[in-house]
Amino acid sequence: MKKHNLCYAQSGGVTAVINTSAAAVIAAAKTTPAVHRVYAAQNGILGVLNEELIETWHESGKSLRQLEQTPGGAFGSCRVKLPDPNDDLVPYARLMDVFAAHDIRYFLYNGGNDSADTAMKLSAAARTLNYPLVVVGVPKTIDNDLAATDTCPGFPSAAKYVAVSIAETMLDVASMSATSTKVFVLEVMGRHAGWLAAAAGMAVPVGGGALMILPPEVPWRRAHFVATLHRRVKKYGYAAVVVSEGLCDSKGNFLSADGTDQFAHHQLGGVAPIIADVAKHAGYKCHWGVADYMQRAARHIASAVDAKQAVAVGEVAVQLAVQGKNAYTPVIRRLSDSPYRWRVEATSLKKVANRERKLPTTYFNREQYCITAAGRRYLSPLIKGEAYPTYNATGLPEYAILKKQLAHKKLPPYSAN
Amino acid sequence: MKKHNLCYAQSGGVTAVINTSAAAVIAAAKTTPAVHRVYAAQNGILGVLNEELIETWHESGKSLRQLEQTPGGAFGSCRVKLPDPNDDLVPYARLMDVFAAHDIRYFLYNGGNDSADTAMKLSAAARTLNYPLVVVGVPKTIDNDLAATDTCPGFPSAAKYVAVSIAETMLDVASMSATSTKVFVLEVMGRHAGWLAAAAGMAVPVGGGALMILPPEVPWRRAHFVATLHRRVKKYGYAAVVVSEGLCDSKGNFLSADGTDQFAHHQLGGVAPIIADVAKHAGYKCHWGVADYMQRAARHIASAVDAKQAVAVGEVAVQLAVQGKNAYTPVIRRLSDSPYRWRVEATSLKKVANRERKLPTTYFNREQYCITAAGRRYLSPLIKGEAYPTYNATGLPEYAILKKQLAHKKLPPYSAN
Repeated sequence: MKKHNLCYAQSGGVTAVINTSAAAVIAAAKTTPAVHRVYAAQNGILGVLNEELIETWHESGKSLRQLEQTPGGAFGSCRVKLPDPNDDLVPYARLMDVFAAHDIRYFLYNGGNDSADTAMKLSAAARTLNYPLVVVGVPKTIDNDLAATDTCPGFPSAAKYVAVSIAETMLDVASMSATSTKVFVLEVMGRHAGWLAAAAGMAVPVGGGALMILPPEVPWRRAHFVATLHRRVKKYGYAAVVVSEGLCDSKGNFLSADGTDQFAHHQLGGVAPIIADVAKHAGYKCHWGVADYMQRAARHIASAVDAKQAVAVGEVAVQLAVQGKNAYTPVIRRLSDSPYRWRVEATSLKKVANRERKLPTTYFNREQYCITAAGRRYLSPLIKGEAYPTYNATGLPEYAILKKQLAHKKLPPYSAN
Repeated sequence: MKKHNLCYAQSGGVTAVINTSAAAVIAAAKTTPAVHRVYAAQNGILGVLNEELIETWHESGKSLRQLEQTPGGAFGSCRVKLPDPNDDLVPYARLMDVFAAHDIRYFLYNGGNDSADTAMKLSAAARTLNYPLVVVGVPKTIDNDLAATDTCPGFPSAAKYVAVSIAETMLDVASMSATSTKVFVLEVMGRHAGWLAAAAGMAVPVGGGALMILPPEVPWRRAHFVATLHRRVKKYGYAAVVVSEGLCDSKGNFLSADGTDQFAHHQLGGVAPIIADVAKHAGYKCHWGVADYMQRAARHIASAVDAKQAVAVGEVAVQLAVQGKNAYTPVIRRLSDSPYRWRVEATSLKKVANRERKLPTTYFNREQYCITAAGRRYLSPLIKGEAYPTYNATGLPEYAILKKQLAHKKLPPYSAN
């Protein structure tokens, strides 16, 4: 069998376990006869365009083990949209030149729905340009909004972080509420889908208790929110609110946006302070937090299931590549909730690209601002188990320090013009 | 020996390990011959005023073990300032009545410098009113600003959370910086003292690398900050900024305050968005987070040293009480940095009350926005080791659910007038 090289790249917003998938790809490729060596593109597809290819075989076994527990994208990620290959084949011709120069026949793109779109375009362009490339996706996103997969690696760890953080902060504010703070607002990620906000619901019993969840799928009604807030504070002595960054009003406008918010405040970004301001006007002392990158980088509290699934999709992606499953991606299929059983299957990237899976209405009770029993059944197994990193002598996790040795360039520099 | 009862109460901002001290007090009192039973005042000193005393002996052994790993103040905390007993003895007379009614001769107040002040007033008033009360402090504060102690229980865990969180988010932004976010700003607590901001320095090598720390002790100079930010981004491709909530300008005004900030923005609170706005104006895509209560409630990443010291101060406080060390408090004395050795000593509450220990100038390099080698020597042992909580079947930590059975009231309701 003629061996060829594989190129792995990271794309879009990174997660606590995207490097876990990277390490799994590199390890699986080593034992795959059809694969010679694994390159990692520096900064996603940009690294291919610029012929900046990291020779992963120089990395030590220790570094690759530590890579599994290192958050962020160790090889660099990117937010780059390629043109439609029907309109402009120039960048694709360059990509094929780079692949050919380094005998790369397998390309694994580790990303979300935008990255699936890029992978599909790349696959189509390779066919047009007659280059024998197999493109396979490796799913990841903390937003959990990928179609065709039960969950996305990255989401369960972020969900665990959100659930544990709101559980902890609710205990905090509960103890302060007699004479001080009565409302705590936490902003989590989710421009269009409220999966992470919903995960906060795991911190409380069915019914929601003192917690109110504001996902982007449910238009925010100020009067209804304030009335419910009053009832919660009256009943529990305090309230906690978890709000998605993408919360919208009934007209579909974001509450928070760059520039000036809809209340004509100069708004520096962040919906938490807006909701906190509403709670303040309702008469409550209020604190607010913004989890931002902390939630997606929180490898220190990664979900054990997430780490396993991140490995599994990486391994299967290598198999799909050498099987010639072009424009396919591994996905997670759930077999049962309790006991939680799942397996990895393959599906066409078409079913993933440019689609968005929102929080189902059956998972969320919009009148009570809480998840339903069905929502709990879905979320519960995902945040179970802790995949702790090892720590060094100074009390910090041991992160991989990679050599990232670049391959010798064989082509002239790329110029798009 | 005649036995008497002990009353324990929590005060001020709570921490990840204040309940660890509570559990230690209850356990130590059980084996102390002079102590009959332990009451816990509901919501700090307010619980004594209102004769709301929790009978801790009804709590199960399991609940008390889980209390050790439960953040927040399980018995309720309060922010209440008592009058000077020279001006107004009325509330003190009530407090002594409640103590007498329940045969409480030992009062342990778990708090920071304000609580030490309350404890001192209480002790003085008891002497004036001729009630045989022994008042002992139990130190805690995430701010680490207590005088006369090397560190304060609560701080090492919050410091570990900050150090790990900024390490994780720096890895995240580093991987995005080629085409997206170049600056990440994290706001941490600290109105007047920059200990928690300084803890972020543990995430990076000596010199600071891509990290810039803005503690309240150093007046913020916009031009110097922006110039340094440019240099960091140029050198590392990205930068991270950790800013204390209490950051001030050269005139001593807070950058962030309720109402209108000094830039005439309507400011909803939070200095992170202000610094992020400055970074945006400097030309960088920027993300920001606000750790708020998350940092002080993050029991899931508590420091092992912190948990041990929280137990130790609780145990010693009980000893001091029965030894009659009125108006004393246990403090932590550091014996050596490496290996880290410490012991608990007793000191007068006078040395703690109403004083504030700021970040020493020798621990911080204000030109480089980073901690010094001396700062690292101080911080390093504090964040070493992880005191993980146990988790339940749904993936959440197991928190204590206390009965909190109130003692039968023996006195008429309290009215301040």
